Amino acid sequence: MGIHHYFKSLSDMEKLYRCPGKFLYNEHTVAAHSFKVTKIAQFLGTVEEYHGKKLNWKSLYEKALNHDYPEIFTGDIKTPVKYASSELNRLFSEVEEEMTHKFVTQEFPAAFQDIYLERFKEGKDGTLEGNILSVADKIDLLYESFGEIQKGNPEPIFLEIYQEALTTIVKFNEMDCVKFFLDSVLPDMLAEKFIPQSELSKITQSLIADGD
Amino acid sequence: MGIHHYFKSLSDMEKLYRCPGKFLYNEHTVAAHSFKVTKIAQFLGTVEEYHGKKLNWKSLYEKALNHDYPEIFTGDIKTPVKYASSELNRLFSEVEEEMTHKFVTQEFPAAFQDIYLERFKEGKDGTLEGNILSVADKIDLLYESFGEIQKGNPEPIFLEIYQEALTTIVKFNEMDCVKFFLDSVLPDMLAEKFIPQSELSKITQSLIADGD
Amino acid sequence: MGIHHYFKSLSDMEKLYRCPGKFLYNEHTVAAHSFKVTKIAQFLGTVEEYHGKKLNWKSLYEKALNHDYPEIFTGDIKTPVKYASSELNRLFSEVEEEMTHKFVTQEFPAAFQDIYLERFKEGKDGTLEGNILSVADKIDLLYESFGEIQKGNPEPIFLEIYQEALTTIVKFNEMDCVKFFLDSVLPDMLAEKFIPQSELSKITQSLIADGD
Amino acid sequence: MGIHHYFKSLSDMEKLYRCPGKFLYNEHTVAAHSFKVTKIAQFLGTVEEYHGKKLNWKSLYEKALNHDYPEIFTGDIKTPVKYASSELNRLFSEVEEEMTHKFVTQEFPAAFQDIYLERFKEGKDGTLEGNILSVADKIDLLYESFGEIQKGNPEPIFLEIYQEALTTIVKFNEMDCVKFFLDSVLPDMLAEKFIPQSELSKITQSLIADGD
Amino acid sequence: MGIHHYFKSLSDMEKLYRCPGKFLYNEHTVAAHSFKVTKIAQFLGTVEEYHGKKLNWKSLYEKALNHDYPEIFTGDIKTPVKYASSELNRLFSEVEEEMTHKFVTQEFPAAFQDIYLERFKEGKDGTLEGNILSVADKIDLLYESFGEIQKGNPEPIFLEIYQEALTTIVKFNEMDCVKFFLDSVLPDMLAEKFIPQSELSKITQSLIADGD
Amino acid sequence: MGIHHYFKSLSDMEKLYRCPGKFLYNEHTVAAHSFKVTKIAQFLGTVEEYHGKKLNWKSLYEKALNHDYPEIFTGDIKTPVKYASSELNRLFSEVEEEMTHKFVTQEFPAAFQDIYLERFKEGKDGTLEGNILSVADKIDLLYESFGEIQKGNPEPIFLEIYQEALTTIVKFNEMDCVKFFLDSVLPDMLAEKFIPQSELSKITQSLIADGD
Repeated sequence: MGIHHYFKSLSDMEKLYRCPGKFLYNEHTVAAHSFKVTKIAQFLGTVEEYHGKKLNWKSLYEKALNHDYPEIFTGDIKTPVKYASSELNRLFSEVEEEMTHKFVTQEFPAAFQDIYLERFKEGKDGTLEGNILSVADKIDLLYESFGEIQKGNPEPIFLEIYQEALTTIVKFNEMDCVKFFLDSVLPDMLAEKFIPQSELSKITQSLIADGD
Repeated sequence: MGIHHYFKSLSDMEKLYRCPGKFLYNEHTVAAHSFKVTKIAQFLGTVEEYHGKKLNWKSLYEKALNHDYPEIFTGDIKTPVKYASSELNRLFSEVEEEMTHKFVTQEFPAAFQDIYLERFKEGKDGTLEGNILSVADKIDLLYESFGEIQKGNPEPIFLEIYQEALTTIVKFNEMDCVKFFLDSVLPDMLAEKFIPQSELSKITQSLIADGD
Repeated sequence: MGIHHYFKSLSDMEKLYRCPGKFLYNEHTVAAHSFKVTKIAQFLGTVEEYHGKKLNWKSLYEKALNHDYPEIFTGDIKTPVKYASSELNRLFSEVEEEMTHKFVTQEFPAAFQDIYLERFKEGKDGTLEGNILSVADKIDLLYESFGEIQKGNPEPIFLEIYQEALTTIVKFNEMDCVKFFLDSVLPDMLAEKFIPQSELSKITQSLIADGD
Repeated sequence: MGIHHYFKSLSDMEKLYRCPGKFLYNEHTVAAHSFKVTKIAQFLGTVEEYHGKKLNWKSLYEKALNHDYPEIFTGDIKTPVKYASSELNRLFSEVEEEMTHKFVTQEFPAAFQDIYLERFKEGKDGTLEGNILSVADKIDLLYESFGEIQKGNPEPIFLEIYQEALTTIVKFNEMDCVKFFLDSVLPDMLAEKFIPQSELSKITQSLIADGD
Repeated sequence: MGIHHYFKSLSDMEKLYRCPGKFLYNEHTVAAHSFKVTKIAQFLGTVEEYHGKKLNWKSLYEKALNHDYPEIFTGDIKTPVKYASSELNRLFSEVEEEMTHKFVTQEFPAAFQDIYLERFKEGKDGTLEGNILSVADKIDLLYESFGEIQKGNPEPIFLEIYQEALTTIVKFNEMDCVKFFLDSVLPDMLAEKFIPQSELSKITQSLIADGD
Repeated sequence: MGIHHYFKSLSDMEKLYRCPGKFLYNEHTVAAHSFKVTKIAQFLGTVEEYHGKKLNWKSLYEKALNHDYPEIFTGDIKTPVKYASSELNRLFSEVEEEMTHKFVTQEFPAAFQDIYLERFKEGKDGTLEGNILSVADKIDLLYESFGEIQKGNPEPIFLEIYQEALTTIVKFNEMDCVKFFLDSVLPDMLAEKFIPQSELSKITQSLIADGD
């Protein structure tokens, strides 16, 4: 039994890289992804609350913070594999749950086991907080894939990921936070522009002229 | 104005490495550190609550999640520099605050500015939640420095960091969560053992014998 | 249809890292692992042939070279997950096979499809060549885990991997190549020694004295 | 004497990076290159056999697998240096051969020395198998340089490498496998397309509209 | 007291990365930057001398080589922070000086302390050598930011750095070495061109045709 | 002709890694090595001057700064290869010289060509400045190999490098700077100590006790 094993396992999330098997300009760890999803969920929750929704903040933070923790037991199984067979997907989830259950009962003091079994459960459960997690998870994925496309990554998979992530976000477009994202965030992301090398010459000449 | 800039800035925390200027076996980003501190704070809060303390979970999560965010404006100033002059430290904190204030008022919708100014404030404020953050921050630092010492990092700075972190944790030893850490976690960490190469020979011979 | 997609997919194996989620001093890609396994299999086959066994070299090379190729479709599923449920393992293998089948029929000219379906099949099939592959795969794993233990990696998992790999090798100890490995290679590996820092002082003094 | 030293030396090929001294988006090791060349040679051989050529598969695999192994003794000498003086090139090859010879006689059991001296010889020897190796080696180089050009690498050397590699491949254009490559693989490689950021806006709007 | 500590500290400069907190295609260490600045200063000094200026080479090399050494004590404080408050900037410089002073008096033999205190002083002091350092420092920064823009880095900060660096260089446009740089180096840098993928098709077809 | 090509080539030295083909805990680039050698040479020169030697500082800096620049043309040829045949070594040096000569005459303005041909010549020429370079080059190599041994690198080559470097330094033990190094620097390097994990327990207990 040992919380030391739990604390140590957090470092394993710094060694799990997302999107294994693909060239990326900018690698992301599961630890950093979990951090960003929690920060994004915090913002989305703030928007929901502003529009009068009653939010369980404790639940939202627990869902966002822990949503990928079971990956330290199972590793990264590729999405197409998971969905290749609904039977496989069901079995995989079962095994993930069993391994998480075993870890919690082995390493946590009895007094905290139920709390942690609850925390490590699938968080995307149709509640407001679960829906915010679903959206936040996909917003970070959208940013990751946009970053690769913007830097010129020629792998077509990043456009597929971008589309898949956006499609999921749009499914929740009745939510105020999704409306805010689609109206006030996404356009700014798409409006980002490159500095074409040709412009550099003009800028340079103007700066040199200014100095004279 | 743009929440897009805020979401994008989260990625900068994946590019800030802790302990710059030192050889490390295992590098840690500020994003991953923030994630681990929030997870550790979650556990410490659970222990406090178990011992009957009334905890503001929303506040605890906000403090932990955001405690190093202003580093994206100011970069990593080395601790000895900060404390070399209390005047410098004070001015540095002022500038950090000003830059955070400017960012929030520039990028956030008016309706959310006060909420985020509050969230980005120094969280170690003597409240129960602030103290949990202080302890969680140092526990992660303890694990980072222990990891280097354990792997054989010859830089004496990691022993100094280990000692400084533990000294701060011990200052809070009236807290139930600190008692739990000192009694039930730290001993397991210290008891971790190497696999001496000499043992390998014995293990190997026994495995070969078993196969016959 | 396109062999271009097949050639390009080879690069994905350079981006699949082995043992995700664990701190390693020395990372290994699936491409490099496949190369080393094929080279080791080549040596083991040479030993078998020397002892009079009739070897199908073409088959041995095909098995070794392609044994981890399907990982580009399915990613790295952790071994404990695979074996947590024999049902899951069976389904996983089925899905892997289906995805490989789909890829071959989509990307390869009809004339070469049967050849490649055969090449991408599970190679550890109880034939002499299959058994050599089983042993070569574990020898590389043994070297990987030994390298980590030797460098002082404190993760207990590397001792477990070392033991598991050796146990599998020993199961084939009726084979001449395994005898050769256990008698003539393994002892040299275990006899590798460190240079203790204390010895450095003596060496240094002697070199300085020699220079006078 | 020790095969352990041979097995260990395979790991050195994971630490030899191709094209040292140049900025690359995507680094390649000599181990991974050897793997890819062997896989490409396997395909080219399959095409030749399909067109009725009699192929020595054992020889082809030996050539491809070992073609860069001697680099662990000599390191990476830049191509322009090698060809700056034919005398230097000849001497360099001689030294490479001597070092390989010394390694084989020192580390391999007497019974296997001739076999390995043969395997480590220059494989590009004008036989069908040697020619397939020449082509496979250049196809991987073509893919490496194409990958850099496609990702926007501004170093002109990658265009030079692309041209040099293609020029060599074209020299073998009497071979069926080269015809196949030029007709059925290269056009697909060149037809790969970017996702211009401008297209993203349209895709995004259409996905949002679909969700309504 | 120990020059060993001084020699060892040089390695810390290999672990200080420039521009922390930003995605870069090509990372640069403070050690490599110091090397490049000294090489550039050497060239600029050569131009000045050619135009009849009397140059103190010893002083120029000392200034260039040591200009960023104090960063090992203070780490990398972001430029906007430094200039956010002139008071903070003054205090920060004071602390940097104190820490350098303390290091020199602790680690260097008395006979060399004055020499090193002089060497570690701010080198940009309005002398010819100081001005050459100012220009060389900015030329390297210009190359670093140009490299990112050219590779397609979408962060607007690199255009800001490019402009800031050039603006400073232009301030010294009365110097012969700056005239040389603006007239004979900068235009070549800006004239660098990409290899558009579309050109590849033409080149490829022509090479294939040549081979026939 | 273009100094731009010269300035750009400095970046190539950031992409040349020392000791290719070997596992290293801590990688070093040729740019960083050149920087450290120049800094060490500066110190050694200071010691020589203190002991009354007349030093040509301009020459010392030119030698140290440029001593590995020609590696950008020739790459890293392994030392054992170079010395395997004195004929090869002579030819290799000739080719290196020719390539450097060609670069200088192609890229530098006529007025500066002689100056740079002189600067890029072999600097270890038996003069006081040449000898200081020889020693400084080996001191940095000694530190690099010591760093690997101290961190537990099991490759025997690092002890060989350590010994070879020290042997060369000792050959110059008539020089005051070498005496200083052997008497006042090397003992401190060797006296560096590890923090055994066992000590951590004691330190920890004492810190906890202090807090009570």
